[in-house]
Amino acid sequence: MRRKGLASMAVQTVAPATGSTGTTVDLGPASGLSCRECGEVFALGPIFACELCFGPLEVAYELPAGDPEELRRKIEAGPANIWRYAPLLPVPADVAEKPNLNPGWTPLVKADNLAREIGVEPGKLFVKDDSGNPTHSFKDRVVAQALEAARAFGFTTLSCSSTGNLAGAVGAAAARAGFRSCVFIPHDLEQGKVVMAGVYGGDLVAIEGNYDDVNRFCSELIGDPLGEGWGFVNVNLRPYYGEGSKTLAYEICEQLGWVIPDQLVIPIASGSQLTKIDKGLQELIKLGLVEDKPYKIFGAQAEGCSPVSAAFKAGHDVVRPQKPNTIAKSLAIGNPADGPYVLDIARRTGGAVEDVNDEQVVDAIKVLARTEGIFAETAGGVTVGVTRKLVENGVIDPSLTTVVLNTGDGLKTLDAVADSSQATATIRPSLDAFRDAGLAH
Amino acid sequence: MRRKGLASMAVQTVAPATGSTGTTVDLGPASGLSCRECGEVFALGPIFACELCFGPLEVAYELPAGDPEELRRKIEAGPANIWRYAPLLPVPADVAEKPNLNPGWTPLVKADNLAREIGVEPGKLFVKDDSGNPTHSFKDRVVAQALEAARAFGFTTLSCSSTGNLAGAVGAAAARAGFRSCVFIPHDLEQGKVVMAGVYGGDLVAIEGNYDDVNRFCSELIGDPLGEGWGFVNVNLRPYYGEGSKTLAYEICEQLGWVIPDQLVIPIASGSQLTKIDKGLQELIKLGLVEDKPYKIFGAQAEGCSPVSAAFKAGHDVVRPQKPNTIAKSLAIGNPADGPYVLDIARRTGGAVEDVNDEQVVDAIKVLARTEGIFAETAGGVTVGVTRKLVENGVIDPSLTTVVLNTGDGLKTLDAVADSSQATATIRPSLDAFRDAGLAH
Repeated sequence: MRRKGLASMAVQTVAPATGSTGTTVDLGPASGLSCRECGEVFALGPIFACELCFGPLEVAYELPAGDPEELRRKIEAGPANIWRYAPLLPVPADVAEKPNLNPGWTPLVKADNLAREIGVEPGKLFVKDDSGNPTHSFKDRVVAQALEAARAFGFTTLSCSSTGNLAGAVGAAAARAGFRSCVFIPHDLEQGKVVMAGVYGGDLVAIEGNYDDVNRFCSELIGDPLGEGWGFVNVNLRPYYGEGSKTLAYEICEQLGWVIPDQLVIPIASGSQLTKIDKGLQELIKLGLVEDKPYKIFGAQAEGCSPVSAAFKAGHDVVRPQKPNTIAKSLAIGNPADGPYVLDIARRTGGAVEDVNDEQVVDAIKVLARTEGIFAETAGGVTVGVTRKLVENGVIDPSLTTVVLNTGDGLKTLDAVADSSQATATIRPSLDAFRDAGLAH
Repeated sequence: MRRKGLASMAVQTVAPATGSTGTTVDLGPASGLSCRECGEVFALGPIFACELCFGPLEVAYELPAGDPEELRRKIEAGPANIWRYAPLLPVPADVAEKPNLNPGWTPLVKADNLAREIGVEPGKLFVKDDSGNPTHSFKDRVVAQALEAARAFGFTTLSCSSTGNLAGAVGAAAARAGFRSCVFIPHDLEQGKVVMAGVYGGDLVAIEGNYDDVNRFCSELIGDPLGEGWGFVNVNLRPYYGEGSKTLAYEICEQLGWVIPDQLVIPIASGSQLTKIDKGLQELIKLGLVEDKPYKIFGAQAEGCSPVSAAFKAGHDVVRPQKPNTIAKSLAIGNPADGPYVLDIARRTGGAVEDVNDEQVVDAIKVLARTEGIFAETAGGVTVGVTRKLVENGVIDPSLTTVVLNTGDGLKTLDAVADSSQATATIRPSLDAFRDAGLAH
């Protein structure tokens, strides 16, 4: 974790706690940024690393006090998107009236067919399906937070490094909100993700290298005058951005009747999503919105990019970077920034981190489609595949409530299943031809 | 409209008003099937054409009587999907508890940026964006109704002829509900639609011919013992299937605060969707859920398959079939079954039917993406393009509330915009290379 470089950039881009209008920044209940390592608190601004210890910053809150029942009712009466949780997010109270994509409140699907297929007790397995978000991945949740921060800090260009899904989410959100956008992707992405990143009319820059190269480049750009005035959603706006993943925890619990599930299976790319889901669950407990109870968090990686899984299995606290080689490109981050925190959470909750190979990913995509009618992208194949593996190994308890995340859409990673999902037969339009094809049921 | 053939098949497949269990068919408020031409009423069953006059059958209801305010409250307290309208649909009251895809309650997006771009008064233009449905098209709405009918009539195989979107919707719904599926598509569909139709594990049959050939083949199959026991969602279950489109009307009005918009722009393939949206609006008026007021319905076609637009412009009551040649394949039905009814409705409401060419379709897709962050499939390009054209021609009033439908997802028709939505630049990961590319803002 090359923190020195990050911190010196943070100092360069530090801003006062007021937006470009000179008024105090209004990000709702967000009261400041606190260092995850040393606890030092900073004013809200486009900074992401602690000046003292170089630790990552995260949003600190003054969360609503008072009757949990009343807060629950207020949330339940809110819009069918993430803004029902606005009182718990770093956004102004009137966020739902501003132009944005209004993601979230995606289905929590009771997956009885899948449960039977992989040996879980029917009624106990759920898929949180984020493919219905506006740009068909969970990234709409995090970008929506970063956009509000960008507005508050007076940025006019939205940017990011991306493995594809984020590029589309930033492009779309910027278009709706009237921002310019310039997004950076590895040059070898899936065609669907490239077109989706380009169609919204912003600048789309392909970098000759993998995601870690793209990320390094963006870190350089943000410290250079060339990047001045740019809001990089996952760099200088990262503390706000990350908070969007908490909404997955909120929705899952509310959809289960304000109950924390016993087991959650979450994909790991940078690891941010998993750590923020844990943060969201802890907040719900603190607020009294759910009862405190034990839960286990399981992280899922693809074998071809499994630095966190490798560290977990080896009993290490540090994550050794890997050079990714997997079809699960949205998870192909070889040097995951939040890897050590993921290890902490998996161990603290009694969970685990596991990985599956590309063949198992493809198989899991098809099992999920065949059993539940959900067409997941490769990242969903990873979580479903890992769930199956952990059930088989006796690590996941099949009699307890388990929620598996599908964070993206199969239409963006068609190549993974294209060869094996073609027409069963091609025939002339005649009954004889149909009879000869042997498909009558 | 070769009605004789259809009617004789209807007689062959007629069933008693009881399901396979021998109990009375429970499809909620649906009381029978009535002929759209002569008004004759039949018992609920898997039939689709009148025995007397060969006219198409549609569902007749005993709709809930009583206080509209109470019904509105009941609907508003319902689930965030089409089943909030279960009391107005041909489905059992407990439909939400059965395994299905729970589509609907998709966003009605206030499209101020698009409004400014095409000359509509900001605040007056809305996009009903159905790309967030489970299989990313409005077809999930209609299939969900057909599935309940199939359950009620004891079918175990779900089938359809499809231009692509329907195939995916049937495959997914069948998988979730535990039905077998066998879907029929033209052999030259977009890759995304083929893979999505195949991934759910049912049989996928490519027919050498266009959609009209596929449709003809399915009509033959349903009259043959080979097709016995099959529920063809858009043939022998068509009366139920079509009702799903009413939910678009319900949602639009509820999302506008229980108000009918002044103008609606709706794509025309078979024309069924447009006629059922009109039916839905009329029901809302009858039930007192909205105030009675004038509204204009505009139909949108692609120039390369514009039989209804041609008939409208020529002042004809009959629709002359065309051989489709357009990139808007989901609308490429050269012989649209409901064409004459569409003409009636456009004329009765003071609307129109218009078409745009493929270049305008592509341009409209990109305008919608660039202004609102919505990536539509070609059918959405058709409706947005037609809206722009009708505003320019002074046919649509830019000062009145207008709702434009986007019925599908850009990821399924990537080819339409792939050439023009690639990376702005491909560079090495260095600041110098970025500077040289001239993209600094």
